[in-house]
Amino acid sequence: MPTAPASAPVSRRGRPGHDRAAVLQRAVELFNRQGYDATSVGDVAAALGLTKSAIYHHFPSKEALLSAALDEALDGLEAAIDRAVAGSDVLTQDEGPHTAAPTAYARLHRAVEESVHVLVRHLPAVTLLLRVRGNSAVETAALDRRRALDDRLGELVRAAVKEGALRHDLPPDVITRLVFGTVNSLTEWYRPGGPVGADEVARFVTTLVFDGLADGDRA
Amino acid sequence: MPTAPASAPVSRRGRPGHDRAAVLQRAVELFNRQGYDATSVGDVAAALGLTKSAIYHHFPSKEALLSAALDEALDGLEAAIDRAVAGSDVLTQDEGPHTAAPTAYARLHRAVEESVHVLVRHLPAVTLLLRVRGNSAVETAALDRRRALDDRLGELVRAAVKEGALRHDLPPDVITRLVFGTVNSLTEWYRPGGPVGADEVARFVTTLVFDGLADGDRA
Repeated sequence: MPTAPASAPVSRRGRPGHDRAAVLQRAVELFNRQGYDATSVGDVAAALGLTKSAIYHHFPSKEALLSAALDEALDGLEAAIDRAVAGSDVLTQDEGPHTAAPTAYARLHRAVEESVHVLVRHLPAVTLLLRVRGNSAVETAALDRRRALDDRLGELVRAAVKEGALRHDLPPDVITRLVFGTVNSLTEWYRPGGPVGADEVARFVTTLVFDGLADGDRA
Repeated sequence: MPTAPASAPVSRRGRPGHDRAAVLQRAVELFNRQGYDATSVGDVAAALGLTKSAIYHHFPSKEALLSAALDEALDGLEAAIDRAVAGSDVLTQDEGPHTAAPTAYARLHRAVEESVHVLVRHLPAVTLLLRVRGNSAVETAALDRRRALDDRLGELVRAAVKEGALRHDLPPDVITRLVFGTVNSLTEWYRPGGPVGADEVARFVTTLVFDGLADGDRA
């Protein structure tokens, strides 16, 4: 059975999956460059050389474009924290022959690494997410999901402090904000395809955050 | 000699210095909340219960308001780096009876502390500065001054690495971006008058950045 008969409308429009992704990508670029409010569906269509109705074929409204972009960022970040909290494939402090649950420190370390990787893979969508201020129902829903993520990260930090793996002279809430503020600041300068690879930048961030910059050999 | 004769126009307008500062403060609030492009001089006037001509008495245009706010942030940051580089009142590594020049590490440490204090004192203006993308001559000029500041901070970092005080396994340019990315991320959550004081938050940031979060006693 043919999956895409030549006579079907979907075929006349070319590759709809590709088109949808291309529309979303260009919309996010414009939202980031000139602001969401200042961007119209007509701007997105013009940037792609398409008609507005071609855009509406994929997204019923400008807000649907915003919602899809924020979902992309949030789905990625939530999956990253899920992987980190589950702790699969993480070295544990207990390196004995039996399987031990990873420490909170190991899970937090991995949460930072995984978050950096999501930022690198979904940089425009995460950049957009970080600018959301709650000006509509879509933005408020995204902020609620962001806050739930922050709460999970805060729990990991508190567990790592309690475990004795993180210093006690900084409040856990401040630690959480500073660590993920450092991660999020990558959106200001990091560019995929540049001189610094994703694994490398993840290592740089975890080194700064957990080990600090002062040369230990010298102190 | 009276400094402000009752008949002078300046007196009829009340306290012009105070008014000017209040106009600028409210404008920056609106720029940060709803975006510079989406804010009109009429919005600023309405928010203050003033006429547009009362605003124009202090600032000839909306762009003059933006320019004054960016100058406030940049003047503060430049003065902070000046103080740090000059190194007055900084403990030196050499604690002998003679006066020694502060190390690059001490100057960098102080640059981070002083930058945090400027952020806390001028939070709305610095927040606005960090959102500038170069969409006008005023914004381009501000970005040029920001870049010059980044260059000076980059020099301090390179000197501290060369001195052997900072770890060698991170590129100095990445160190500079991560450290001041961490500092700048304070604009996302820090609020003056909240539970964390300015000296305290400066200490938290320098502790994270230079010493790291991992508990050294335990490692």
